[in-house]
Amino acid sequence: MQDYERGFIGFCGFKAVEARWGCFESRVEIRDHHRQQDGFIHAGVMATMADHTAGYSAFTIAPEGMQILTIEFKINFFRPAFGDSLLCRAKVVREGRQIIVSESEVFDLREEGETAVAMALVTLMAVPAESLQSAPL
Amino acid sequence: MQDYERGFIGFCGFKAVEARWGCFESRVEIRDHHRQQDGFIHAGVMATMADHTAGYSAFTIAPEGMQILTIEFKINFFRPAFGDSLLCRAKVVREGRQIIVSESEVFDLREEGETAVAMALVTLMAVPAESLQSAPL
Amino acid sequence: MQDYERGFIGFCGFKAVEARWGCFESRVEIRDHHRQQDGFIHAGVMATMADHTAGYSAFTIAPEGMQILTIEFKINFFRPAFGDSLLCRAKVVREGRQIIVSESEVFDLREEGETAVAMALVTLMAVPAESLQSAPL
Amino acid sequence: MQDYERGFIGFCGFKAVEARWGCFESRVEIRDHHRQQDGFIHAGVMATMADHTAGYSAFTIAPEGMQILTIEFKINFFRPAFGDSLLCRAKVVREGRQIIVSESEVFDLREEGETAVAMALVTLMAVPAESLQSAPL
Repeated sequence: MQDYERGFIGFCGFKAVEARWGCFESRVEIRDHHRQQDGFIHAGVMATMADHTAGYSAFTIAPEGMQILTIEFKINFFRPAFGDSLLCRAKVVREGRQIIVSESEVFDLREEGETAVAMALVTLMAVPAESLQSAPL
Repeated sequence: MQDYERGFIGFCGFKAVEARWGCFESRVEIRDHHRQQDGFIHAGVMATMADHTAGYSAFTIAPEGMQILTIEFKINFFRPAFGDSLLCRAKVVREGRQIIVSESEVFDLREEGETAVAMALVTLMAVPAESLQSAPL
Repeated sequence: MQDYERGFIGFCGFKAVEARWGCFESRVEIRDHHRQQDGFIHAGVMATMADHTAGYSAFTIAPEGMQILTIEFKINFFRPAFGDSLLCRAKVVREGRQIIVSESEVFDLREEGETAVAMALVTLMAVPAESLQSAPL
Repeated sequence: MQDYERGFIGFCGFKAVEARWGCFESRVEIRDHHRQQDGFIHAGVMATMADHTAGYSAFTIAPEGMQILTIEFKINFFRPAFGDSLLCRAKVVREGRQIIVSESEVFDLREEGETAVAMALVTLMAVPAESLQSAPL
């Protein structure tokens, strides 16, 4: 996980909060560039966070030397998010050798407490790291 | 659409290419901050682009004064994207007064041509702009 | 719910087990006509059960005189189901006036206990019963 | 495909109409047991048909001796279906050795012509037939 801060994830500002077997939690402090034209947090931020955190939850159960690819995900947006931070908790709901399914919940941290703003179901695939360059699926 | 360049979308660098009734096309020039640790374009970039472009395709058919919210979407990633640009084409597949469904296709622009890398099905809702501040759904 | 037994649901043989605020549980005794060519329970049975049970969970929180329509759903199949009965538990995860989201889990009842075989995320819409005949969405 | 008529698919009454490379089309004549309490065709019938037809479209491109499993699908219901028949057309949108994605469209055949009533995106997996009895994913 030495690369956690690089690329799009670093650009988005997601931080790892906690990792344990089958679970991962990440957090992001919201800045203006995370919002859309009405001041709400952009759905793309929540979707990226849900996918990313689900991927890391799958990584906690993958054998050494395996990489995790997202095959697909589905996300429901429950209500607009407008707080200062988002928290995402992902947990593996289907543990497989190859196909792993995780569920991510995204919470908007507001003054009055945390509010669930999105939920995703993410299908992931564990592939040998060396196969990633060629024809992974 | 004067706000097109602001916030997360401007941050991601998506540009509008074409808009017509029920259709929208957007494009992004890929930079290092769009990639993940292996050099591929991050799934979150494609998901955000698919959602964003679908939303704008719905906007082309919405009555004056309506805003478009994403209720949910599902996206399949077909293969890793590594090109210099992504192109996204969205079209409305279910035209409703309130519930609109759009399909987005994301293409990786490589030297050898464009390759389909992701497909999304997006459920959107047209809501009166003034209701957005309160309890939109 | 006097119509519970009629039509496709009666044909499939789903039985209501329990209903309470935001939750619904249904069960089906598996017969040969629920299976596919390899003897496993057909994915369509699980999908129908997940949708149906989610719909009834939404119905428990809908105001009097409202009907529930499924806008869309997504279901993941975790492993083949081959037991004598399926059990489905649905709960509302997003309570809205109009848009309701429920999560359904399907369990295969085998000799050695219950095994999770599918999970669905279902987007539903509460509409006035009288509008159903015309242009509901 | 000698088993096409058996089990849940025969029970539902789906008939194969046409198969060619990457495409499959099926049809069902609607009877009372396909409907729900309001007389509309049950969403579960459309979902089962979309999944089933997608699976057969994937089967047209799978190597000899492979079976097709549904990993997950997502379906949007566009409007109530009430006609005398449903037609489903599926086509492969992502051809892979192992992971195949198909899109299914369901049409309601009414006196005035065919109307699109549902669209699904289905993720499938090709597995060696002999592995199906053990730990397929």
